[in-house]
Amino acid sequence: MKINGSRLMETIETSAVIGATENGGLHRLTLSKEDEEMRATFTRWLETAELQVTVDDFGNMYGRREGTNPELSPVVIGSHLDTQPYGGKYDGIVGVLAALEVIRTLNDEGVKTERPIVIINFTNEEGARFAPPLLGSGGAIGEFSKTNVYDTKDTEGTRFETALVDSGYQGEEDDRLTDAHAFLELHIEQGPVLEEKQKSIGVVQGIQGLAWFQVHVKGEADHAGTTPMSGRKDALVAASAMVTALSRYGNSIEELVLTVGTLQVHPSAPNIVPSDVTFTIDMRHPDDYMRKGVPMAIHKILSDTSKNYNVDFTMETNYQAETIHFPEKIQNVLAEETDALGYGKELFYSGASHDAKHMSRITDSGMIFVPSVNGKSHHEEEYTSAADIEKGANVLLRATKRLADEEGDA
Amino acid sequence: MKINGSRLMETIETSAVIGATENGGLHRLTLSKEDEEMRATFTRWLETAELQVTVDDFGNMYGRREGTNPELSPVVIGSHLDTQPYGGKYDGIVGVLAALEVIRTLNDEGVKTERPIVIINFTNEEGARFAPPLLGSGGAIGEFSKTNVYDTKDTEGTRFETALVDSGYQGEEDDRLTDAHAFLELHIEQGPVLEEKQKSIGVVQGIQGLAWFQVHVKGEADHAGTTPMSGRKDALVAASAMVTALSRYGNSIEELVLTVGTLQVHPSAPNIVPSDVTFTIDMRHPDDYMRKGVPMAIHKILSDTSKNYNVDFTMETNYQAETIHFPEKIQNVLAEETDALGYGKELFYSGASHDAKHMSRITDSGMIFVPSVNGKSHHEEEYTSAADIEKGANVLLRATKRLADEEGDA
Repeated sequence: MKINGSRLMETIETSAVIGATENGGLHRLTLSKEDEEMRATFTRWLETAELQVTVDDFGNMYGRREGTNPELSPVVIGSHLDTQPYGGKYDGIVGVLAALEVIRTLNDEGVKTERPIVIINFTNEEGARFAPPLLGSGGAIGEFSKTNVYDTKDTEGTRFETALVDSGYQGEEDDRLTDAHAFLELHIEQGPVLEEKQKSIGVVQGIQGLAWFQVHVKGEADHAGTTPMSGRKDALVAASAMVTALSRYGNSIEELVLTVGTLQVHPSAPNIVPSDVTFTIDMRHPDDYMRKGVPMAIHKILSDTSKNYNVDFTMETNYQAETIHFPEKIQNVLAEETDALGYGKELFYSGASHDAKHMSRITDSGMIFVPSVNGKSHHEEEYTSAADIEKGANVLLRATKRLADEEGDA
Repeated sequence: MKINGSRLMETIETSAVIGATENGGLHRLTLSKEDEEMRATFTRWLETAELQVTVDDFGNMYGRREGTNPELSPVVIGSHLDTQPYGGKYDGIVGVLAALEVIRTLNDEGVKTERPIVIINFTNEEGARFAPPLLGSGGAIGEFSKTNVYDTKDTEGTRFETALVDSGYQGEEDDRLTDAHAFLELHIEQGPVLEEKQKSIGVVQGIQGLAWFQVHVKGEADHAGTTPMSGRKDALVAASAMVTALSRYGNSIEELVLTVGTLQVHPSAPNIVPSDVTFTIDMRHPDDYMRKGVPMAIHKILSDTSKNYNVDFTMETNYQAETIHFPEKIQNVLAEETDALGYGKELFYSGASHDAKHMSRITDSGMIFVPSVNGKSHHEEEYTSAADIEKGANVLLRATKRLADEEGDA
């Protein structure tokens, strides 16, 4: 039994029209007009596939295919249909639409499974409109409180709850998914590993931990024309030395990634020596032990640099997450089904975060990656070949069926 | 004959209440409510000193004291009463109120001068509300067209003309000052030279030239978690290396100052490797020949760095101004009157720009500096001692009287 690759690609291309950008990407922010249109189309697809459609109080959409033993907990598969601003047409989307294709294939083949299968479209995975990311999955499993999620505002000040109600996708708290036998998420890799190794399937071992730091460099504002170079306490020159030193350090440790993604200068006038600079550091390493030591090394780099440049600094931890290790049982199922199909595979940790991270709190979870050309994602140039998507969907089909036929307690 | 130091300081302290900040500074943006109140107070002071008050079409305010030979062109003295946001209470203000004190002293002593004396408050010297700076003096002498000045908008979108009309200080184009025998401006130094040299009077030789460049660094956006350090084209790491290299270069050349005062990062998310960074370079050196060579050196630094970091860049010149050299005649008058008073003096170029720069286009101009404690300005901590202000005002008094008694064509 194999999925219908051309039907899957046709479905993906239909999705790619809703919020299409000039450059072949997608701009489909959470609960936007485009997201509403996608949700309506997705609902029709779910109903045509004879699934029971429900929506929970975070707008997460579920399509349930009953099992021969409805008392058993379901196997859950899916991802998200929202995108980054001017993002690509694969990220998240492939995972939801491949899940739909799995159901269609089982329907075509008249295959029943013991357990129910539920496919999911999570709300606001990207966090691009409403921060933080993974809002829908985090709300469903209780990582975020309902009040906090509802009070989250977009940059124009619109509350999440308002946008949700206006979209028509505010469902019931009782419809949250709280019980599952397993969760599988197919996703594009968003990195270069599979392409470099020339493999089509990534069996994801877990999601690497990360920490976000906020650094504030405090110098002194001075007139750019009247203050000699030697007398300055230039916060931006000091911060720049920190950024380059952090980059060198990141390069020196295998598997460590350090990113300064935001940096603000104050007072920000061409003719005033900057007094204050604030920047973020995103730090990731799959090894929890390593990752715990890195902040001390970062602090040492910042401290040495601030002394050299005669400025002060503070460093705060804004967020941290341990590495999530997916159960070996799920990894083994995915690896065995990949081998059975004769596809090349690679086992590694995800550098990016995914809804599977939250789902792993309530059930055995795992992920299948398919290659991203040039490692690109969150970008209009994001591309994964139809051949690789089809392979990923076949692994998802076989693994889903296998897990859905597992016995167990209700 | 000497000015009344305590009366001058009382006048300055009265000004310091209008737009006072909690921390002892002033927030009195051009044509704001506070500026209007200051202008009304200043008008009363001008009238009490029996001056003929006029306002030109840029809101520049003039107070004329007639000479014994009214046909002769006037000696003009003054500066500006507007401030930076949360600026100090001396910048500009001392120059206007010392000019008023000069008139009051001449009145007290019953001293007549051959030539008229005109004191000026220029509109929007700071450029803090309406960019560019020196708008009033530049408009008056024809550096900026009336249309351009009137169409200038503040950050809230209010046009200069609207703010001017609303303030009640839109005067006549015929009242612009177009003819003068000389212009003198007393100003705080805003830098450390006088304090370091322990001198009270700076005889300003000119205003050093400057150039503003805009640099754009183009890298590639990537996911912070999934893109290894080695594969990145991180625009911020490259820009940071540029900023530190520029700082080193600025430190290596005497009298050169290089400032990166603004820097913007795109797309500016903690977990996205920056694709684009834009920053400004403010470059000043008193020597025009030196200053012409520096941009090539800057370009070389940017080019080498961009190659090292595998990014592209562009560098554009946004603005440049030659060094203004004040006439030796005026420098000599100021130096001789300073010596006659027994004050210590230092001759040097101004690193900051001033209304005297525009006035030098239409008449012999010069400036007197008084010390800024710790070189601070554009800051609530800006401070100049009463003793130094009094000395500066005495030099202004003697030089003004001397120039106003010079003979010449009408």
